[in-house]
Amino acid sequence: MISATKLQDHFQRIRENKLFETFVILVIILSALVIGVKTYDIDPFLMQVFEGLDYAITLFFLAEIIIRMLAEKDLRSFFRKGWNLFDFIIVVASLVPVEESEMALLGRLLRIFRVLRLVSMVPELRILLNALVSSIPRMGYVSLLMFIIFYIYAAVGTIFFHGINDYLWGNISISLLTLFRVATFEDWTDVMYETMEVYPLSWIYYLSFIFIAAFVFLNMMIGIVLETLQKEHEKFDRENDQGEAGEIHWLRLHAEVMEQRLERMEQMLEQLTDAKDGTPARRDPPP
Amino acid sequence: MISATKLQDHFQRIRENKLFETFVILVIILSALVIGVKTYDIDPFLMQVFEGLDYAITLFFLAEIIIRMLAEKDLRSFFRKGWNLFDFIIVVASLVPVEESEMALLGRLLRIFRVLRLVSMVPELRILLNALVSSIPRMGYVSLLMFIIFYIYAAVGTIFFHGINDYLWGNISISLLTLFRVATFEDWTDVMYETMEVYPLSWIYYLSFIFIAAFVFLNMMIGIVLETLQKEHEKFDRENDQGEAGEIHWLRLHAEVMEQRLERMEQMLEQLTDAKDGTPARRDPPP
Amino acid sequence: MISATKLQDHFQRIRENKLFETFVILVIILSALVIGVKTYDIDPFLMQVFEGLDYAITLFFLAEIIIRMLAEKDLRSFFRKGWNLFDFIIVVASLVPVEESEMALLGRLLRIFRVLRLVSMVPELRILLNALVSSIPRMGYVSLLMFIIFYIYAAVGTIFFHGINDYLWGNISISLLTLFRVATFEDWTDVMYETMEVYPLSWIYYLSFIFIAAFVFLNMMIGIVLETLQKEHEKFDRENDQGEAGEIHWLRLHAEVMEQRLERMEQMLEQLTDAKDGTPARRDPPP
Amino acid sequence: MISATKLQDHFQRIRENKLFETFVILVIILSALVIGVKTYDIDPFLMQVFEGLDYAITLFFLAEIIIRMLAEKDLRSFFRKGWNLFDFIIVVASLVPVEESEMALLGRLLRIFRVLRLVSMVPELRILLNALVSSIPRMGYVSLLMFIIFYIYAAVGTIFFHGINDYLWGNISISLLTLFRVATFEDWTDVMYETMEVYPLSWIYYLSFIFIAAFVFLNMMIGIVLETLQKEHEKFDRENDQGEAGEIHWLRLHAEVMEQRLERMEQMLEQLTDAKDGTPARRDPPP
Repeated sequence: MISATKLQDHFQRIRENKLFETFVILVIILSALVIGVKTYDIDPFLMQVFEGLDYAITLFFLAEIIIRMLAEKDLRSFFRKGWNLFDFIIVVASLVPVEESEMALLGRLLRIFRVLRLVSMVPELRILLNALVSSIPRMGYVSLLMFIIFYIYAAVGTIFFHGINDYLWGNISISLLTLFRVATFEDWTDVMYETMEVYPLSWIYYLSFIFIAAFVFLNMMIGIVLETLQKEHEKFDRENDQGEAGEIHWLRLHAEVMEQRLERMEQMLEQLTDAKDGTPARRDPPP
Repeated sequence: MISATKLQDHFQRIRENKLFETFVILVIILSALVIGVKTYDIDPFLMQVFEGLDYAITLFFLAEIIIRMLAEKDLRSFFRKGWNLFDFIIVVASLVPVEESEMALLGRLLRIFRVLRLVSMVPELRILLNALVSSIPRMGYVSLLMFIIFYIYAAVGTIFFHGINDYLWGNISISLLTLFRVATFEDWTDVMYETMEVYPLSWIYYLSFIFIAAFVFLNMMIGIVLETLQKEHEKFDRENDQGEAGEIHWLRLHAEVMEQRLERMEQMLEQLTDAKDGTPARRDPPP
Repeated sequence: MISATKLQDHFQRIRENKLFETFVILVIILSALVIGVKTYDIDPFLMQVFEGLDYAITLFFLAEIIIRMLAEKDLRSFFRKGWNLFDFIIVVASLVPVEESEMALLGRLLRIFRVLRLVSMVPELRILLNALVSSIPRMGYVSLLMFIIFYIYAAVGTIFFHGINDYLWGNISISLLTLFRVATFEDWTDVMYETMEVYPLSWIYYLSFIFIAAFVFLNMMIGIVLETLQKEHEKFDRENDQGEAGEIHWLRLHAEVMEQRLERMEQMLEQLTDAKDGTPARRDPPP
Repeated sequence: MISATKLQDHFQRIRENKLFETFVILVIILSALVIGVKTYDIDPFLMQVFEGLDYAITLFFLAEIIIRMLAEKDLRSFFRKGWNLFDFIIVVASLVPVEESEMALLGRLLRIFRVLRLVSMVPELRILLNALVSSIPRMGYVSLLMFIIFYIYAAVGTIFFHGINDYLWGNISISLLTLFRVATFEDWTDVMYETMEVYPLSWIYYLSFIFIAAFVFLNMMIGIVLETLQKEHEKFDRENDQGEAGEIHWLRLHAEVMEQRLERMEQMLEQLTDAKDGTPARRDPPP
């Protein structure tokens, strides 16, 4: 039992070792380079060297993930972290023996995704990706509205331009793709000039689409900037200004109490002095 | 009379039922899918099934709008809401029997716009669309200025390049379209190189146009962002800062009154102590 | 003398008449429409009608500018306003008899610029244009830096790619135009693939150019937004916050004086009470 | 010894002379113009004139840098400034006799970079460039994330589309270039339609790539704007608000002390008045 805990401590020390971390990152980069180099037409001998390197990297990743699993108290706490699960799938999947051509392709693809392990290893990238993912829902309803606009235009486009160019307006999916092309301004005039030969007024269709899409997109961007700014503002206010505003409010309440007290004190003093020399010392009350 | 009110209550309960609302949304999505599927070349039998489905959806929408009309106290309050009027037109228009090919096309188009009912049903989308519509006037005068720039360039372009390419510079409308194409950078160099063969200096025309258009567009965007930010700022100030500034002003005014009172009190105290031991206790007055 | 002043008053009243202003704007729009319509191939008879209309508009503009000149006290104060000078040049220039084809073209061009009178007539457009013009200097040095980058790349491009395509890299002006084309992403890969056949590494030239140009442009945009925001902020602070900060400073100074006074008063009161019952009532001084 | 110091003073006076500075700037602009003019096909005689001018400019730059070196106390302090080192390299490099064609090209390139001396001479441009350079690290991790995304897509693209078009997807570098082309929307549909003939679903590859790249880019831009705004905000707060907040806090602390003092004073006064007329004057304590 003691030896197990010792081993766990040992593995934990390895995992938290800066040098080990850097080495893992270097292996990931090497793995990425190997993937890249293998896309070139290279000497068969060199190719075999790279295949061997690829195999070695796979084994290293296996060893590394086992160390990280053993460093954890139990497997459940290991898999609770999304990134660990991601790493585990990537590593295990590349272990599957790949003989058939179909599976070989899958194996190669999975080995490419090992590059994403860089994101899980470098904390700055992990923070960045989390920020990106958390900004997705914000775009939800605007994307839905955008899709409705695209869908309606695609349906109208298919009905009218079906017969003109089946390649661009064959069915609603193809039309959606064509409209996305128009939205990126990619040879959109070629698409327009073609339909304008049959429907001379079809420029209204394209221009209205471009204006509406650009308008919604622009508003979405401005909306996101403003929303983020407002959140920052509110956070800042909660931290700083609330303290200030709170202190000012405290001052105001207590100033009232002080004023009442002073009024009472003045009355008492007047009583005392009146008793002394009989002169009423009262002046105007506060406004 | 009572039964009518009861019925109205009953319809109101249906209309406000979350389940019913969700069901209506699902039917709208189904209606959108049917529109989409019908653009594919499908089996004639399946096509008939979809036609039937389309018919059923039309009837369902009719029933739904009647329920919502009966749920309202009177028809006028029903039609006062813009979205209701929109829904009504869409539903009634798709009821018109469509036999002739011309009308059939119109019928199909109207059925596409039923997808927009999604916007009228989902509150978040309705808010979004209202926000979009309310941001249109803000762009009014800049759009007018932009149009004046386009118009002048189009007129100049037509005069000079008329003879070079009638297809691009035939008359002012065509020239406007060509300039919009140039503004989207879509094969604009092809347009330019063509006219540069006759007028070698015509690049000045294109570059000045691109710079002016981009410049006005950029300023418009920045203007909108700043305007929206300022509005938010003002709203925020009215809510928060005014309170703070108001309290500070209150404090200042009352501090003056307190100071005067304290001065009087000190004088009285001095009188009292002077009377006791005859020592003038006066010190420097406040600055 | 009196009749002259009377006439001037009369013209002033005409000039400030809302109805007259609206009529002038309508004539400007009509003038723009006539320019537009004349670019179409229309019936010779109709063309003559439009020529007549054009002539009438020119005379109306002449009459209008004379009214505005007479409404002013003297000609100098009329010409001091930039917009008046602009109107005057446009109107006078279109009066020049246009017989020769060269001059006829100039006459037609000048008549197009009459559309710009819309800007000088509508106050909102005038404000907008002034704002645009005032934002030009802000872009000065960034534009200069941008031009230096373009110039260096154009010189390098001309030296290397001169022999490959004289049409795109013939001399430094042509190269500048080609680089502007690359910066707008207009068929830039065609330009690149061509030179990559001779210099396989020339993608470095294009990518570095695109990155640098985009980077400088982005920073310029962000800089403008921030500068405008900061100006707004400062203006806002000068107006609001300074008042607040000033009042708080006043409060602080006077609170010090009040504190000193209270200390003196407490001492006096202690003297009085000590004299009464001989018990020292002193407590800790303020921190 | 004295004459040397005198000479140094003399050179310093030259260097700081506004007229001399302006003259240097004019020579740099002239040098840029000569570079530009020489790219045109000009008369051999004129070409020789420009060659002579080029030679004279080189000598002038040499003289100028020697003056600036002698004006400095020692050479080390001269080379400590990055811009001086840059100027020195540019000037010395263009002195190298250029006979061979290879070296001649290098000489011409170096002479082009003399235009950059404009940046080192005009303070506003120097500030601008420093600001640009300082904003580079800010983009570091986002650029890394962007590169990882590009790399993964390029690897996947090479594996799948290798056989379809070797010119676009031959190896990972070519694929990266192709993806950059897709990201700039430059004829990206041509690339897509080609692969869609073999893999009809490959539009998913392109659209997901465009969305992810645009999404990361957008977030990067917003992030930069927000970060810069926040920095400005913090700087502003440190300068202004801290003072205000500090004064408010001072007011709050001292108001507490004043309140305690007033309470004591009231008690004493009550004692005094009670001793006079025996009536308890106590009222409610502050909340």
